[in-house]
Amino acid sequence: MAVELDLTYASELLDERDFAGIERETAGAARLLDGRRGAGSGFLGWLVLPRTMREALPAIREAAERLSASQAVLVVGIGGSYLGARAALEYLKSPFYNALKKTAPDLYFIGNNLSASYHEEILSLCEGKELSAIVISKSGTTTEPAAAFRAVRSLFRERYGAKASERIVAVTDERRGALRELCDAEGYRRFAVPDDVGGRYSVLSAVGLLPLAAAGVDIEALLDGAGDAFSRYASLPFSENPCHRYAAARNLLYRKGRVVEVFASYEPCFVQTAEWLKQLFGESEGKDRKGIFPASASFTADLHSLGQFLQDGSRNLFETVVDIRGGKSRFSVAGDASDGDGLGYLAGKPYEEINRSALEAVAAAHAEGGTPTLLLSTGGRTEYEYGMLLAFFERACAVSGYLLGVNPFNQPGVEGYKRNLFALLGKPGYEDERERLLKRK
Amino acid sequence: MAVELDLTYASELLDERDFAGIERETAGAARLLDGRRGAGSGFLGWLVLPRTMREALPAIREAAERLSASQAVLVVGIGGSYLGARAALEYLKSPFYNALKKTAPDLYFIGNNLSASYHEEILSLCEGKELSAIVISKSGTTTEPAAAFRAVRSLFRERYGAKASERIVAVTDERRGALRELCDAEGYRRFAVPDDVGGRYSVLSAVGLLPLAAAGVDIEALLDGAGDAFSRYASLPFSENPCHRYAAARNLLYRKGRVVEVFASYEPCFVQTAEWLKQLFGESEGKDRKGIFPASASFTADLHSLGQFLQDGSRNLFETVVDIRGGKSRFSVAGDASDGDGLGYLAGKPYEEINRSALEAVAAAHAEGGTPTLLLSTGGRTEYEYGMLLAFFERACAVSGYLLGVNPFNQPGVEGYKRNLFALLGKPGYEDERERLLKRK
Repeated sequence: MAVELDLTYASELLDERDFAGIERETAGAARLLDGRRGAGSGFLGWLVLPRTMREALPAIREAAERLSASQAVLVVGIGGSYLGARAALEYLKSPFYNALKKTAPDLYFIGNNLSASYHEEILSLCEGKELSAIVISKSGTTTEPAAAFRAVRSLFRERYGAKASERIVAVTDERRGALRELCDAEGYRRFAVPDDVGGRYSVLSAVGLLPLAAAGVDIEALLDGAGDAFSRYASLPFSENPCHRYAAARNLLYRKGRVVEVFASYEPCFVQTAEWLKQLFGESEGKDRKGIFPASASFTADLHSLGQFLQDGSRNLFETVVDIRGGKSRFSVAGDASDGDGLGYLAGKPYEEINRSALEAVAAAHAEGGTPTLLLSTGGRTEYEYGMLLAFFERACAVSGYLLGVNPFNQPGVEGYKRNLFALLGKPGYEDERERLLKRK
Repeated sequence: MAVELDLTYASELLDERDFAGIERETAGAARLLDGRRGAGSGFLGWLVLPRTMREALPAIREAAERLSASQAVLVVGIGGSYLGARAALEYLKSPFYNALKKTAPDLYFIGNNLSASYHEEILSLCEGKELSAIVISKSGTTTEPAAAFRAVRSLFRERYGAKASERIVAVTDERRGALRELCDAEGYRRFAVPDDVGGRYSVLSAVGLLPLAAAGVDIEALLDGAGDAFSRYASLPFSENPCHRYAAARNLLYRKGRVVEVFASYEPCFVQTAEWLKQLFGESEGKDRKGIFPASASFTADLHSLGQFLQDGSRNLFETVVDIRGGKSRFSVAGDASDGDGLGYLAGKPYEEINRSALEAVAAAHAEGGTPTLLLSTGGRTEYEYGMLLAFFERACAVSGYLLGVNPFNQPGVEGYKRNLFALLGKPGYEDERERLLKRK
């Protein structure tokens, strides 16, 4: 099933007149995208990944199979070279993926922060396990993954000597850069980060597909779903197009003072997808002193923490709730003769049913309290349907960014961070920047 | 070391005149708190937990020791009966606590959502392990933990028969409620949720202390730190009081249009403490259509996702960054003869040093970009210092809530959610509510 949008719980703030008023603008934004005439149109390769990646699939699968022969795969990457794979892994497999029994190897994500204890603990988890590694970095010089990859190389040299390079696969720039050169020098197998795909849009390139294939994900089905969704949402008329209507709805809400979007779901497997969404939307729209701040929540857990705020606090936010349908679990509330907890009326009822009731109860209550919910529904936790979901959000984000009047495909502020960090750490060539920063203290 | 506040990176928006202007108000808020004359003053038991919990420590330790004899402890709870223990566990032990080698048992948190797959997966992790359980619920009728506790009882009856009750410890109301009655009927060992302590302020009661003691945390040191911090921040004059100045600063920023606070740190062990903070502040202040929306980030990871927004996006937010000092790890960037990645200038440098440089670089860059940082520093990851940190935030939140003009100790919106859920699920006695909710669809 394709992603659908239900505006029932946003009707206090959005009606068809609002949509009629923004229809032409939205169509214009979509034309900028599909006609490749908008800002950042050199970075639209993600729209065709479901087609262009086909050719590479056998090689990716073959590399993944060799990686899978080890007990744990270290996945080195940060930002877009980390979040997409992790999001899909937890959604399609489990947030407890590493702890659960399985035939595929553990996946340990490293190089995604600068914490000593984090890296020491991951390395201690590696003790006694056969290892391999995937290193993902377009340039090869971003501090976090580059430093972590040094640790991996050093560990692998120690453990595997001359055979170390056979256990490492790189995903990097096709032609240039530090990691690309290292591939030649060390003989790593490698895959390309396409030139025309930004990090946050790269999950359906080798950046995401290689680690996912190593974990046993059906990457072809993922591409199939994304491809079908891209076609679908590019062709449906506005009134029936949930993707464009979602983009329009969030812009309408923003214009009405809703400056925070809370991405939420009722399944913990969605938590990391929400993190991926925060990068996708935050980095695409958070510029020129504009943008909806992307937050996230995991329900029902966070109804017992953020619920009070969502119900009664500042009325400057809205929720985007993803309803994951198609679950087939029969896990139910157990019976209890005494019924002391008063839960007898639920005995035998499947959790999935109760959970969906919670979703409806909450959306209704929040709407009454003045916080609208944009309700998206998606099918089960299959690769095909997750591919559709990813494509839905990618396209919605691009259209939304154009509606907002920004370039959805650059990230000047992130470059600024990388530069500042180089400067403060004393990297040669950044002396002036360093002096400017230190003056502040 | 006590918690300190550094306003260097907020100086564009806050200066001493601002603080002078709000000093009297802040002192008034603190007097409301300490004089027990403010709204919700029946719920100030948390201020004296470091003293009142002493007596219970031997019994808590003894119960924890018996729980620790099993290989995994199921901890059933949601909201304040979940977040505090999990936050402290990850901060003081590790986010990878369960996966790491240790002498204490695994801790599995359940009853904190309504996801079938979540609970099925946790139960599959329990296979082949000796189990015990802690159930934490004031009433015993909250849907999520009550349903999960039914699953635990059913599993334990199956596995341990008549001995099941010996493996269960309850933390619940001292005198009444469904769980309290179950304790009598089944003979569970039990500890009290104090009447005058709300869920989000309960981490230093048996609610947090029992599971933490089972994981080998020094709960007495935690209380010591909190007690010293409460005394300290109640007595320091405003100009030297980081706790009151933090409360004042966030209110000043809110009045200047900063409607989102991003709680962040550079250590992944802080991620769950940020979740605890989101409940603490969100539930205390998010009412009467007011309040700063509490969000969180984990740096440096999220600089590669939210960094763009924080640097260049809407200027309606501020960051509260907790700098965790006192780390003693020597984990360093590895050397590499070729230096292809250009990281040679960092070779041999400890991660902790690099991480702190990142903190400074980022705070400076964000301040320049127009996003201020309130920088809090705390000592190492010891129980005593974490106790201080918790107490710092608890007191700051109470003072801040009074400054905002709300009752920081109620949560009418959460009660609303519980009621709505009962109604939509068809609980007897909620028929009218149910009809009202269904009309909407």
